[in-house]
Amino acid sequence: MNEYAMLHIPDSRYCFATGEKELVLRLRMSKEDEKAKVFLIYAQKYDFTFCRKKQPMEIKYSDKLYNYYEIKMQLTDVRFAYIFQIEEGGDTWYFSEDGVTKEYRFEEGFYNFFQMPYINKNDVMHTVDWMRSAVFYQIFVERFYKGNEKKDTNYINMKWDELPTPKSFAGGDLAGIMKKMDYLKELGINALYLTPVFRSISNHKYDTIDYFTVDPQFGTKEELRQLVKLAHDNGIRVVLDAVFNHCSMYMQQFQDVMEKGKNSRYYDWFLIEGDVPDPEKMNYECFAACNYMPKLNTSNEEVQEFLLGVAVYWIREVDIDGWRLDVSDEVSHDFWRRFRKAVKKQKPDSVIIGENWHDAYAYLMGDQYDSIMNYAFTKACLDYFAKGVFSAKEMAEKLNANLMRNMEQVNRMMLNLLDSHDTHRFFSEVNKDKDKMLAAIALEMIFEGAPCLYYGTELCMEGGYDPDSRRGFPWNQESWDMDFLETVKELIRIRKQPVVQYGEIQITEEKEMLRVERNGEQNRIILRINMTEKKDIPKQAEEVVLCEGNRFLITLMEN
Amino acid sequence: MNEYAMLHIPDSRYCFATGEKELVLRLRMSKEDEKAKVFLIYAQKYDFTFCRKKQPMEIKYSDKLYNYYEIKMQLTDVRFAYIFQIEEGGDTWYFSEDGVTKEYRFEEGFYNFFQMPYINKNDVMHTVDWMRSAVFYQIFVERFYKGNEKKDTNYINMKWDELPTPKSFAGGDLAGIMKKMDYLKELGINALYLTPVFRSISNHKYDTIDYFTVDPQFGTKEELRQLVKLAHDNGIRVVLDAVFNHCSMYMQQFQDVMEKGKNSRYYDWFLIEGDVPDPEKMNYECFAACNYMPKLNTSNEEVQEFLLGVAVYWIREVDIDGWRLDVSDEVSHDFWRRFRKAVKKQKPDSVIIGENWHDAYAYLMGDQYDSIMNYAFTKACLDYFAKGVFSAKEMAEKLNANLMRNMEQVNRMMLNLLDSHDTHRFFSEVNKDKDKMLAAIALEMIFEGAPCLYYGTELCMEGGYDPDSRRGFPWNQESWDMDFLETVKELIRIRKQPVVQYGEIQITEEKEMLRVERNGEQNRIILRINMTEKKDIPKQAEEVVLCEGNRFLITLMEN
Repeated sequence: MNEYAMLHIPDSRYCFATGEKELVLRLRMSKEDEKAKVFLIYAQKYDFTFCRKKQPMEIKYSDKLYNYYEIKMQLTDVRFAYIFQIEEGGDTWYFSEDGVTKEYRFEEGFYNFFQMPYINKNDVMHTVDWMRSAVFYQIFVERFYKGNEKKDTNYINMKWDELPTPKSFAGGDLAGIMKKMDYLKELGINALYLTPVFRSISNHKYDTIDYFTVDPQFGTKEELRQLVKLAHDNGIRVVLDAVFNHCSMYMQQFQDVMEKGKNSRYYDWFLIEGDVPDPEKMNYECFAACNYMPKLNTSNEEVQEFLLGVAVYWIREVDIDGWRLDVSDEVSHDFWRRFRKAVKKQKPDSVIIGENWHDAYAYLMGDQYDSIMNYAFTKACLDYFAKGVFSAKEMAEKLNANLMRNMEQVNRMMLNLLDSHDTHRFFSEVNKDKDKMLAAIALEMIFEGAPCLYYGTELCMEGGYDPDSRRGFPWNQESWDMDFLETVKELIRIRKQPVVQYGEIQITEEKEMLRVERNGEQNRIILRINMTEKKDIPKQAEEVVLCEGNRFLITLMEN
Repeated sequence: MNEYAMLHIPDSRYCFATGEKELVLRLRMSKEDEKAKVFLIYAQKYDFTFCRKKQPMEIKYSDKLYNYYEIKMQLTDVRFAYIFQIEEGGDTWYFSEDGVTKEYRFEEGFYNFFQMPYINKNDVMHTVDWMRSAVFYQIFVERFYKGNEKKDTNYINMKWDELPTPKSFAGGDLAGIMKKMDYLKELGINALYLTPVFRSISNHKYDTIDYFTVDPQFGTKEELRQLVKLAHDNGIRVVLDAVFNHCSMYMQQFQDVMEKGKNSRYYDWFLIEGDVPDPEKMNYECFAACNYMPKLNTSNEEVQEFLLGVAVYWIREVDIDGWRLDVSDEVSHDFWRRFRKAVKKQKPDSVIIGENWHDAYAYLMGDQYDSIMNYAFTKACLDYFAKGVFSAKEMAEKLNANLMRNMEQVNRMMLNLLDSHDTHRFFSEVNKDKDKMLAAIALEMIFEGAPCLYYGTELCMEGGYDPDSRRGFPWNQESWDMDFLETVKELIRIRKQPVVQYGEIQITEEKEMLRVERNGEQNRIILRINMTEKKDIPKQAEEVVLCEGNRFLITLMEN
């Protein structure tokens, strides 16, 4: 048995409560030990010496090196002690806090069993229920649609269909989104993620000047309220972008420090070396290397209070349904803990989605965010669909590994994306291959978590890196590929089926195809993707086709 | 290369800040790969594609299966991206978030490098400085010394030298501790941990009736204040026992619920099934199976406020130096996070020590406790010194594994104990073998963290499990083994040397002996323990003997 491979971490993604009486346990083992029988030996912790039970564990996930066994326990007493027992080739091993042993002294278990000491209500992370059926649509507001005909348009310096530059203004606004609400409803999406809308001098508005004012180019607070109301009336949630890592150098507080230096009451809001911030010397912390985006000191209590005020204000005033957190990995854990409490208190079913491109478990333990923009999913899709460096088997392994990064309820809320304003357009990455594009979207819809379509994906919008991924939406219907669009709509409808919302996921390779199954109580949905030269996708007789493309097939099967 | 064994977890005990510009990185590898060269490849994260540096990593810890490589980085920019490079047998591997690969595409690193995205001030855990030289002495107050000659002694039902029963009262009190302060100072300890002192009907007082009153058997609030003052005047810190998981059924709030049921304003302070708590039916959550100790609902905000009030009150009123947290693993993380903030705000250099018998990393990430009672250390000492089931090599491996459980600053604050009121006396466990006992104490003093002597350990007190481990202190000096006592004092003095406070630890096996070295800038201290039949302990010529016993030797060597 490969002891080196075995991993279990108590009170972590390997052992977590999914309810006040429900516990999930996971054990990592080497794939070499596939024939081993794995058991959970457990008891209420004060009974462990004398009276234990035993349950077999099954493989739930499987990546390149490891199988991950999982079991979900319904508890009566939530003080839970356990170890693992492995039987292989006539031998028996035990795995406890003391590692793998041939013998285990149960009477000394209180020193070295694993345990979930108690499940306290406040520590249980809950799935935001509407995220189970959410299909997000990310709108880069400046480029979606210009709806306000009366506004001062002097700032607009780009024709709608031109290729944008970093300094382009095309005129998109909140009124535009409202005018296109029917389009969005018709598409079938039920959640919007809008890039920042607060006062700023840039087109992207990630450099906020005033967190309490909607940028006049985009509209007014009243229009934002109307937009959210209209969206809600159409069954669409709205998530805004919280840019709390940094602000614009033109924010009043930073300007005050520029003027008064250490005498400014806002000096400690930023991280400055020296008396006065000097944009030329860049003697203060910034986002990336952008001197016009000074970093906010989110360890400072006043800054925390200010930003919490912002977070709660927009929920209270316009009833948004959550926040996407820009550069969230560079903001303090301490702040996000306060943020979660404030936001969830104001609106319990609001969602909090971080922008962490990497393993974000340290932020996803239930005390900070609900989920992240799943760029690890993006990367896997690039490697499989666009670059072809992954076989179906490798893709299955990678997606399994992705699901093992987090607790079940986090996986249910992950924002799975193929692209965004910060990447190349996925359609350009797959070299405008519509078959591949649809297969990738199909995967997004069937995978665990909430898919997020970047605006125009449904119409095969192209684009390279920023600013090219931020082109104007192609409203001229003559350019639309209606078959493609209809298939996307069908895929969105499938995503909202209960079996996809609630079904257990299983991702495997089958005859060089990627196979993703969602297994519900009554039926199961099976997605097969074929990226090989030979494009036909076989299915079993009892499977009913729900949707198909040249590289994917989605079927339904009764249980 | 053994890929299965490789482990690194970003933003965890494998990657943590020890200061605002200081980062520790650890990598786990199989011992089979001892000959591999391990490097850290790193850069400021926005520069990772184009401009990286490389540093070799060294083995710091080594347990049964794994070597743990460590490196401490001093940073200028705290946005830190890294991967590992391993060279072995002419081959080169990379280890990133995507696992082990032969090739690594640095230009796509932003998707899969490891990272510490930013070190924010509020997220850095600091070592409480006085813990570096702390030697704790745990006093079970009822059994240490009866100092108040004037109190009503009707409750006393046990002669001082008798064996106690669960219901015995011997009369020990706060005045007794004050009267013996000279003894404690002379012994050399510089921190007291007192078992609970608040109003309660039991001798152990773990069933609190009133958190704001000192139990009259023990004294008054004024006496507690005097005790802390006297201790401080003698360079001794005082830590009290916070029993916040549960209380006494006689606490006024629980009595109110017993009386009024769901109509009581305290109903939600507890976890009750049904309208009224019924001790016979035990229809409420309790500590263990003790119906007289109802569990407090630490997810309830009012309960939280109440207990935070207690925590801050005793710091403010009598100036204690920290809290030991009873049954802390069953209390909500959410509460401990608030607890840490409240306590550290009131007294920044106070210490918070949880009672978790198991891997407590989920509580020791910097947002909850500082340390725990290190019962994993206790267990290792039992296996090595008392039961003889560990060889020196196994003991070295176990202690190394123990240190890998937590961040460096947590290890520096661990409360390392051989026994307590909740175990058998260690002296009884080693079958009254004074040589073994002294060797174990020597290990406690040289190991990373703060040693904690249970009262009377220095005088070879015996005792089995509760209540036998809670006997009256043997104040009759005729019974004292003065040689043993002097050796303990010498060991305590050695513990306080700077090289033990600040020196890097290295634990190995050397000729069947356990070897613990603390390596400082000027010199190093070496502890050797010999548990084999052949008891002599060789040393090198340049080593100067600081302290020795029949089973241990401590030497000093200039660097």
